[in-house]
Amino acid sequence: MGMVVVGSVAIDDVITPFGKNFNALGGSATYFSICASNFTRVRLIAVVGEDFPKKYLKLFDRKNIDAKGLQIKKGKTFRWKGRYGWDLDNPQTLKTQLNLFKDFKPVLPEDYKDEDILFLANIDPELQLDVLRQSKSKIIAADTMNFWIEHKRRSLIEVLKRIDILIINEYEARQLTKESNLLKAARRIISWGTKKVVIKKGEDGVLFVSKKVFFSCPAYLMEDVLDPTGAGDTFAGGFLGYLAKNQKLDDRTIKKALIYGTIMSSFTVEDYDIKSLKKQNKQSIENRFKKFKRLCTF
Amino acid sequence: MGMVVVGSVAIDDVITPFGKNFNALGGSATYFSICASNFTRVRLIAVVGEDFPKKYLKLFDRKNIDAKGLQIKKGKTFRWKGRYGWDLDNPQTLKTQLNLFKDFKPVLPEDYKDEDILFLANIDPELQLDVLRQSKSKIIAADTMNFWIEHKRRSLIEVLKRIDILIINEYEARQLTKESNLLKAARRIISWGTKKVVIKKGEDGVLFVSKKVFFSCPAYLMEDVLDPTGAGDTFAGGFLGYLAKNQKLDDRTIKKALIYGTIMSSFTVEDYDIKSLKKQNKQSIENRFKKFKRLCTF
Repeated sequence: MGMVVVGSVAIDDVITPFGKNFNALGGSATYFSICASNFTRVRLIAVVGEDFPKKYLKLFDRKNIDAKGLQIKKGKTFRWKGRYGWDLDNPQTLKTQLNLFKDFKPVLPEDYKDEDILFLANIDPELQLDVLRQSKSKIIAADTMNFWIEHKRRSLIEVLKRIDILIINEYEARQLTKESNLLKAARRIISWGTKKVVIKKGEDGVLFVSKKVFFSCPAYLMEDVLDPTGAGDTFAGGFLGYLAKNQKLDDRTIKKALIYGTIMSSFTVEDYDIKSLKKQNKQSIENRFKKFKRLCTF
Repeated sequence: MGMVVVGSVAIDDVITPFGKNFNALGGSATYFSICASNFTRVRLIAVVGEDFPKKYLKLFDRKNIDAKGLQIKKGKTFRWKGRYGWDLDNPQTLKTQLNLFKDFKPVLPEDYKDEDILFLANIDPELQLDVLRQSKSKIIAADTMNFWIEHKRRSLIEVLKRIDILIINEYEARQLTKESNLLKAARRIISWGTKKVVIKKGEDGVLFVSKKVFFSCPAYLMEDVLDPTGAGDTFAGGFLGYLAKNQKLDDRTIKKALIYGTIMSSFTVEDYDIKSLKKQNKQSIENRFKKFKRLCTF
């Protein structure tokens, strides 16, 4: 019942209409693993530089995240700077400094290879293929982004042939398939080989599609969203974390997993970076889950 | 357990990316009453010209819609021509011929005044105020549109002070309140006097907010939306129709009413104008309700 995530650990500078949050802990694998650690054992594969603050390594440790696969190299950690508009959606990238991430070569330690679930967070699809060749996980999920859809489409389609679950946002789904209807977009992706597709729609909830079924789930409504950075990776962490914990893939389990993903990302967006997410525990998660269930039970 | 609707009966010319549908039966009161007639007695107040096809009067009759309040006057029926883009949302108005609708003066026949629910469909807020003065209905709901928000804001705010339920779409909610967050927008509207707010988000579902609670409901997912014209008025017809039938306003009833509104508009959008909507009956509605409930029960 363990999970491996391959992705980025980064330092983010984020500007929102409400303020600035510079030098914050960020990266897809960061949000994913801090979130998923509430559900299951997580093993992290990423790269950082010697400039990476020790306190964050301690945080991973405190969260029982196995960071044996986190390479610490001479050089600088990946940095991202972005700005959100009033819609608090789709940020504008102001600066990307790949630094050590440019030459990132993910290597799965021997005892990582058999973990139940592998999550390939948003990285170059050629690296995703490389990790796929190393892994023997039973369930493989992946994310991607507009840049790879545009520039590495062929490799990405190769990835899609080999994975079980694709977790992307609505813009990526439309861009990838050239379909505006999300149900059709999901079916197109499934025709390429991926078994299940999860489409994240931000404050409009999430859509799940497999060959046999589809269902949708509204978002957890919030009056105050402070910083949406990491919401999608947090969703993936809650969704896959719940699946890893329960070792099942039936409809009922998947629906509950969608809700846990939704709940977890509601924590992420209510404060800057991981400030709220890192404070959550089984009790606070269960409380919000129950509240949400009450709100959307008919 | 009856309902009165005041709104438009029109002839529509609709262009979508899939084709043209000219000289179709349209108008807010049309969609509303054909939909609501599946749940309760509906009494229709609108105006049409002598050019209005007799077959549509027969359709109202067949649907047990009381059209005593439908004024048939010398002159031409209101016509609307619009074009949808690929997002099948927010149509571009190509032509509006108000014709007889320009001088529409809604008059409530004596036996309409006591009906349980009054729905003020999208018409000039000054006319809505005029109808409000005539009505003794226990529950009053209203809709509006961008044009009135921009040009008749003061009268519209007067309407909002006096109604129980506002049913508008997300663009209108934001424009009216200058709030991008829909939960905040709803709360703002409630601060003006309206007791409950329903915000329609098209394929992203619907949001209900009152002083004490809020909940959201996803849309009924469809692979093929042919013509979204009338979806919002159909939603209102299903939502209020279910409330009228059940004579209750508790949370459980309101949630079910949201689902019935959602289901009914899924019929409207799956074909041109009222083609699918008019064919539905208790059985087909119940079937889709059950299917939807299965899809979004956790």
